[in-house]
Amino acid sequence: MSDELKRGLEGVLVAESDLSYVDGEVGKLVYRGHDIEDLARGASYEEVLYLLWYGSLPTREELDAFAAELAAEREVDDDVLETVRTLADAGERPMAALRTAVSMLSAYEPEPDADPEDLDATLRKGRRITAKIPTVLAAFERARQGEDPIAPDPDLSHAANFLYMLTGSEPDAVSAETFDMALTLHADHGLNASTFTAIVIGSTMADIYSGVTGGIGALSGSLHGGANQDVMEVLYEIDASDKDPVEWVKDAREDGRRIPGFGHRVYAVKDPRAKILEEKLRDLSESSGDTKWLDYTTAIEGYLTDQGLLEKGIAPNVDFYSGSVYDSLGIPVDMYTPIFAMSRVGGWIAHVVEYQEDNRLIRPRARYTGPEDATFVPIDER
Amino acid sequence: MSDELKRGLEGVLVAESDLSYVDGEVGKLVYRGHDIEDLARGASYEEVLYLLWYGSLPTREELDAFAAELAAEREVDDDVLETVRTLADAGERPMAALRTAVSMLSAYEPEPDADPEDLDATLRKGRRITAKIPTVLAAFERARQGEDPIAPDPDLSHAANFLYMLTGSEPDAVSAETFDMALTLHADHGLNASTFTAIVIGSTMADIYSGVTGGIGALSGSLHGGANQDVMEVLYEIDASDKDPVEWVKDAREDGRRIPGFGHRVYAVKDPRAKILEEKLRDLSESSGDTKWLDYTTAIEGYLTDQGLLEKGIAPNVDFYSGSVYDSLGIPVDMYTPIFAMSRVGGWIAHVVEYQEDNRLIRPRARYTGPEDATFVPIDER
Repeated sequence: MSDELKRGLEGVLVAESDLSYVDGEVGKLVYRGHDIEDLARGASYEEVLYLLWYGSLPTREELDAFAAELAAEREVDDDVLETVRTLADAGERPMAALRTAVSMLSAYEPEPDADPEDLDATLRKGRRITAKIPTVLAAFERARQGEDPIAPDPDLSHAANFLYMLTGSEPDAVSAETFDMALTLHADHGLNASTFTAIVIGSTMADIYSGVTGGIGALSGSLHGGANQDVMEVLYEIDASDKDPVEWVKDAREDGRRIPGFGHRVYAVKDPRAKILEEKLRDLSESSGDTKWLDYTTAIEGYLTDQGLLEKGIAPNVDFYSGSVYDSLGIPVDMYTPIFAMSRVGGWIAHVVEYQEDNRLIRPRARYTGPEDATFVPIDER
Repeated sequence: MSDELKRGLEGVLVAESDLSYVDGEVGKLVYRGHDIEDLARGASYEEVLYLLWYGSLPTREELDAFAAELAAEREVDDDVLETVRTLADAGERPMAALRTAVSMLSAYEPEPDADPEDLDATLRKGRRITAKIPTVLAAFERARQGEDPIAPDPDLSHAANFLYMLTGSEPDAVSAETFDMALTLHADHGLNASTFTAIVIGSTMADIYSGVTGGIGALSGSLHGGANQDVMEVLYEIDASDKDPVEWVKDAREDGRRIPGFGHRVYAVKDPRAKILEEKLRDLSESSGDTKWLDYTTAIEGYLTDQGLLEKGIAPNVDFYSGSVYDSLGIPVDMYTPIFAMSRVGGWIAHVVEYQEDNRLIRPRARYTGPEDATFVPIDER
C-alpha cells in the first residue's frame, strides 16, 4: 500500500489488455495490433467489432454470419420506442435519452438470467445492445422532429442503416463509407473514462446493460464526449460572425478562449484519427461542392500550427474534424456525442468481457481527511 | 508512472475524502468523524444525509427545513410511473428497473441546464433523486403485485414513508426506527465499487443523474450489493430443509459451499453495522414474537465463531443481519439491493460533489498485451 495520491489515476496500470494501444508520442493507435489507418480504410465497422470481440479479423464467411446476426437484432420493442417518444416530448437531452433507453432495453433481453460468468452470453447481450443503439437514437431524433421512427433495413450496413433510419433515404456511397470510418475510428481508445466506468461496473459482475448504461453516462460529461460538439459550435459561431476564421480564432484567443479540438491527454502530436477524418471531410466537400467547413478547419489548423502549438504538444485531435464531417452528413450537433456512444459501445463491451475473464472487484481507497472522533451531540442540544 | 499492475486498485489512493473512514482492524466506521453507532442510534437518515452533503449535523431548525424540502420532492412524474409499470409488466429485475427509472427522472429535472460546476445545483438535483427513489421502488413493487402506487405522505420520515408506500399502512415505531437505522448504516462506506463508479462518471463533469444511474448499475453486481439477498435465501433454504441451522451449515460447508454474510474485503473483525442490526433484529423479534431468524442467525454465528472463522478474519458482515431485518419488515427479498441503493445514493452524491470540488478526469492505463504490428489482410484474402 502506497500513501501516494494518484490523482485522476494518471499513469496507473489497472489491467492488462489486448484491445488497443495508443502511442501518443508518434500518434499511433492500434486495435489488437492493427493500425487504425489500415482498419479505417480497409475494414468495415462490423469487421472491427468482430476483431474487438472475438480476437481476430473475420473471414468473409464469418463476417457475413456476424453481420447478419447483428442486423437481425436491430428492432426495438414498442415499449422502448414509446418511452423514447415520451423522452423526446419531455425535451430530454440525447445522451440522457440514450442512457434511459439502453437501460430499459434490458427488460426485453431474451437471456436475462444468463450466468454473469458466461462471457459468450455477455457478448450476445452486447451484440443486441450494439445493434439496437442506432435504432433508438434515430427514433429519438425523428420523434424530436415530430416524425415516426423508420424501421431498420437489414440489408444495409450498420453505418448506412443508421443514416437511413435518421433521414428516411439511403445514404450515397461517400456518406456511408465516411460514417462507417467514423464509427471505426471511435470504437476503442484504451481506458478512457467511459470505458473504465464500464469496467468498474463489470468488475462487480453486474450485467452488460449496467456497464453500457454507465459508459453512456460517463461519455456525456463535458470533459469526455462533448468536444466535437464544441468544435462545431465554434465553426457555426465563426460562420455567423462574418469574420475570417483565422481572424476569429486570433480574437478569441486574445479574449482568453480555448479553441476546442486541439490537445489531448494522450496525444502529443496530431491524432491519427484526425488525419483520416480530414481526408474524408475533403471527400465529402468535393462530393457536395460545399467546402466551407474544410476551408475553415484547414485555415484554423494552419494558423494554430504557425503559432507554434504543435511544438507545445497541442495538436488537432479527432474532435476537430469529426464535427464538420457529421455536419456534412446532415447530423444535428447534439447527436454527435450519442454517435460517439454508438461506436464506442463496441470497445466498452470488449473491455468488460476481457476484464471479466480474469476479474477482480475494483475498489480503490480514499485518504481520509475528515475530523477524528467527533463528539455526537443530540439534535436538541446542538 | 509505475509499471506495477494495480489489480482491483487495491490499496491505491485515488482521492482525499472527509466523508467516511473505515478501520477494518478494529471494526470502526465513521461518517465525518462521527461513529456509525452514535449516528445510527441518535440521528435520523435525514440528519445523516445533511451531515454527508453539507458537512455537519444540522440544528433542529436546519433539519426541519431540509426534511421538508426532501419530503416535498417525493412525487414522481406520471410518465416515469407509467414506465415503471411497463417494466414491472415486462418482468424486469428490481435493480434494472431502478436504473432505468432514475435515468428517466432526469427528463423531468427542473434545472436541466444548471452549470455542472455549480455544485449547489448538483446537490439540489441529488436531493430530488434521493427523495424520489423510494417512490419509484414502492411503485415498482406494487405494480408487480398488480396494485396502484400509493402517493407519498410528506408528514412521514424518509424511512417511514417508504414502508407506507410499499404496504399502504403506516409502520409501527420499531419498524420505522429499524428501517431508518438500516438506511443510516448503508449510507456511505468509502470508495466501494458503486461509489467509485459514481466518482469516475462525475469526473467527466457528467450530471449527477449519470453518476447515480452508474452507481445503481455497479451495486447490482453479485460481488457488490447482492449479498444480503444471498443470506436471506440461505435462511429460507434452511427453513425449508427442516434441518437444524447448525447442522445445515455444517453440511453445506462440507459440500464446499460458502456461507454468505461472512467476511469482507475491508473488515477483519465483526462489522460494526452488523452489531447494530443484530440488536434491531432482536427488537423486531421481541415486538412480533417471532424469533426464527434471530435464532437461526445467532446459532450460525455462534457455530462459525466456534469453528475459528473469526481468528481467520472472517467475521459477520452487515449483510448477515440486514436480510433478516428486511424480511421481518415484510420487504421482498429481491428488493434488498434496491433498498441498499435507496440508502447509498446519499453517499454517492456526497462523494461526487466532494470530488468535483477539486476535479480531475479519471483515466488510468492498461498494460497493452496484444500483438504488435499485425499485418492487415483485406477480407477476401483472409
